[in-house]
Amino acid sequence: MSPQRLQSTALHTDRYELTMLDAALRDGTAERHCVFELFARRLSAGRRFGVVAGTGRLLSLIRDFRFGDDELRYLRDNRIVDASTIDYLAGYRFTGSVEGYREGELYFPGSPILTVEGTFAEAVILETLALSVLNHDSAVATAAARMSIAAGDRPLAEMGSRRAGERSAVAAARAAYIAGFGATSNLEAGRTWGIPTMGTAAHSWTLLHDTEEEAFRAQIAALGAGTTLLIDTYDIQEGVATAVRVAGHELGGVRIDSGDLPLVAAAVRAQLDELGATATRITVTSDLDEFAIAALAAAPVDAYGVGTSVVTGSGTPTAGMVYKLVARQDAVGSWISVAKASQDKGSKGGRKAAFRTLDAGTATSELIAVSDGYEQIATAAQYPDSRDLRVPLIVAGEIDTAFEGPSGVSAARAHHARVREELPVRGLALSRSDPAIPTVFVDADPVRSQPTIDS
Amino acid sequence: MSPQRLQSTALHTDRYELTMLDAALRDGTAERHCVFELFARRLSAGRRFGVVAGTGRLLSLIRDFRFGDDELRYLRDNRIVDASTIDYLAGYRFTGSVEGYREGELYFPGSPILTVEGTFAEAVILETLALSVLNHDSAVATAAARMSIAAGDRPLAEMGSRRAGERSAVAAARAAYIAGFGATSNLEAGRTWGIPTMGTAAHSWTLLHDTEEEAFRAQIAALGAGTTLLIDTYDIQEGVATAVRVAGHELGGVRIDSGDLPLVAAAVRAQLDELGATATRITVTSDLDEFAIAALAAAPVDAYGVGTSVVTGSGTPTAGMVYKLVARQDAVGSWISVAKASQDKGSKGGRKAAFRTLDAGTATSELIAVSDGYEQIATAAQYPDSRDLRVPLIVAGEIDTAFEGPSGVSAARAHHARVREELPVRGLALSRSDPAIPTVFVDADPVRSQPTIDS
Repeated sequence: MSPQRLQSTALHTDRYELTMLDAALRDGTAERHCVFELFARRLSAGRRFGVVAGTGRLLSLIRDFRFGDDELRYLRDNRIVDASTIDYLAGYRFTGSVEGYREGELYFPGSPILTVEGTFAEAVILETLALSVLNHDSAVATAAARMSIAAGDRPLAEMGSRRAGERSAVAAARAAYIAGFGATSNLEAGRTWGIPTMGTAAHSWTLLHDTEEEAFRAQIAALGAGTTLLIDTYDIQEGVATAVRVAGHELGGVRIDSGDLPLVAAAVRAQLDELGATATRITVTSDLDEFAIAALAAAPVDAYGVGTSVVTGSGTPTAGMVYKLVARQDAVGSWISVAKASQDKGSKGGRKAAFRTLDAGTATSELIAVSDGYEQIATAAQYPDSRDLRVPLIVAGEIDTAFEGPSGVSAARAHHARVREELPVRGLALSRSDPAIPTVFVDADPVRSQPTIDS
Repeated sequence: MSPQRLQSTALHTDRYELTMLDAALRDGTAERHCVFELFARRLSAGRRFGVVAGTGRLLSLIRDFRFGDDELRYLRDNRIVDASTIDYLAGYRFTGSVEGYREGELYFPGSPILTVEGTFAEAVILETLALSVLNHDSAVATAAARMSIAAGDRPLAEMGSRRAGERSAVAAARAAYIAGFGATSNLEAGRTWGIPTMGTAAHSWTLLHDTEEEAFRAQIAALGAGTTLLIDTYDIQEGVATAVRVAGHELGGVRIDSGDLPLVAAAVRAQLDELGATATRITVTSDLDEFAIAALAAAPVDAYGVGTSVVTGSGTPTAGMVYKLVARQDAVGSWISVAKASQDKGSKGGRKAAFRTLDAGTATSELIAVSDGYEQIATAAQYPDSRDLRVPLIVAGEIDTAFEGPSGVSAARAHHARVREELPVRGLALSRSDPAIPTVFVDADPVRSQPTIDS
């Protein structure tokens, strides 16, 4: 259904993953069962929460993570791996399991957003693809959620495709929609993900015509008086006067794409009202971000169009998530928690479960239960007044299709709206601060029965 | 050849472009010949030059900009355009011309990076695709060029795929390579664009094994002693000692991915030398950007690996280029220069030619000759000691294939290296300032024979 489904995604991979695979097939460690965890060490730029996005896309991309003749020929011709690794890759299909946060869920430092379990061979080579998708889409969704909070009940449209790589633009439209935007300008996002699309005219439309009036008349002839006219190509006051003269009081809306927006919006509103166009809506679209939107709360603005800042994560274009080995089997099949100790980049070994503790419906902590013993994983029943944050996404290689495609997007959008309601009030503020709730690690194994390699 | 060639790119389009097309087909303006110009109003973040990248990609994407059954069905079912527009799009193929800066060329504020000429109908709908590609790729290339300047003769590898959308990551690897990087970790970039790939092992490789020594031995068994060992999973000093013990003096390199790099690199170099591994190279890879690279100039580092900062444009993830109508025919076929007058977002009407003036091989200005009369366009012969910056990319719908594919990438990389030599010394500095050379607009038509709509 999605055009991306036509192609192999297997080379969206860093070379070192295949180099490690090559070496692991030689020394016999390739078949050791492993648990990799995808998480963010911190929230960027003093944000109070992050929003998980990309999960549904990732699942479809994992489905297409197969090495066909073209991929294998490239690897062979360029001697990236040896012949026995080529043979392994020719039959590659992910047969492990993936568990993770629902798409649209909030996350905090250390949240185990995705857990990938399988042999080292099959799990290690998903690192780059998983991080690319979740880092990009979550960065956009997090920025979009802040804008959605700032906009309150006023509708928000994403129109930043031109400021993002052409395919990331489609993913960005999807992420913004999950996090509260209502529409996108991007038609591919409309087709692939079922997102409502919007847009009427650019400045070139006015410039194409000999006068602004001719341009407005032609647009109304095609789209009806309910359309939105762009009024700032020449002089805004004249633009408004012409728009109402041409369209009458039925004029659906005007769009302002320049100038000092609070002042301009107030002047345009006053002029429209004076001309009797009291129902005509004002959309503003010039270099908005969450702070500019918040600053327009008292201005007579009916809708926002956001471009650059949402598709680039409003100063944080990537979420900074990492993919780390946290547990593995040893030579005799016993499970061991592992973690690196690198300065400022240490990780926390062990398999995790995650729960959001709630007090009267308001989130109080991100509770992460760490299990050294692989089999003893915590369940929600152990933590009353909490919500289990993770769901199975792939079970023994079978992808849960409910998370894919447009229906997965709708579900993620609904889930996000629901869980954002749980944020304490301080979590809604735009200023830099600590995460809205603390992350609390607890030991899920009272009796530690397994050795730990922790530093 | 590129997997992207399998699919239509026609819906990488903002809805308003098709809405305008719809209205233009009704009122007869769709067939007016137009000149659209793609340019940047300013350089972001006080940079001293920009680097054009994405041109070769864009040409291939324009080749695939065709509306097939799937695309038309989506537009019809969702009532994006009416039936006669569907008919027009079914036969759409760009038959106009595109002229522009060579890929790899430097640009400055106002540089006419791309000029698209054709009917309004065929040219207006390329806006989003052209901007997506050039804004993203040029932002990465500009950051990469600054890092390449800071690195001097030391090799630079791009390894940021995990911090960019999965397909933008491939484009980013390509842009970085054009701007001076020598390799990428991204295998798809290797396959699609012929870029050298690199990479050996991650921390998970060490953690997979019971000891660091076992991990190192296994890596050397697979890749030889000339490989690069990652030495900071546990304790760096022990890591270095183990690496040399296992690999001997033949050890190719060590990689440091954490810590205070100047101090750590010096300590590792001293330790390696003391152990006799004087030829072992040191690669550093932790959160580098152009400033961190410059700060390592005096440290004993042999190579840099750059991730997040290069793929996200080092603080400027998009180049901020716009696509504006600058000239068009009127109802009787006369050419008119057009420009919008919006506050802080005005454009400069008229068709442009562009030359870099030189003094003894050093650039002195970006000379932009503006022509109101469409036919009278300036040529290099009029401006001695200057270099014509533009080449034909598409002529009457025929794409110049020399700019596409891996050979186009090689040519762009060579061109970039050449033209960067023309920068005055002040253009090489990393600090925020004015552009390295001024942009000078001159009138290419001494006698203005055409009317102008300029504000």
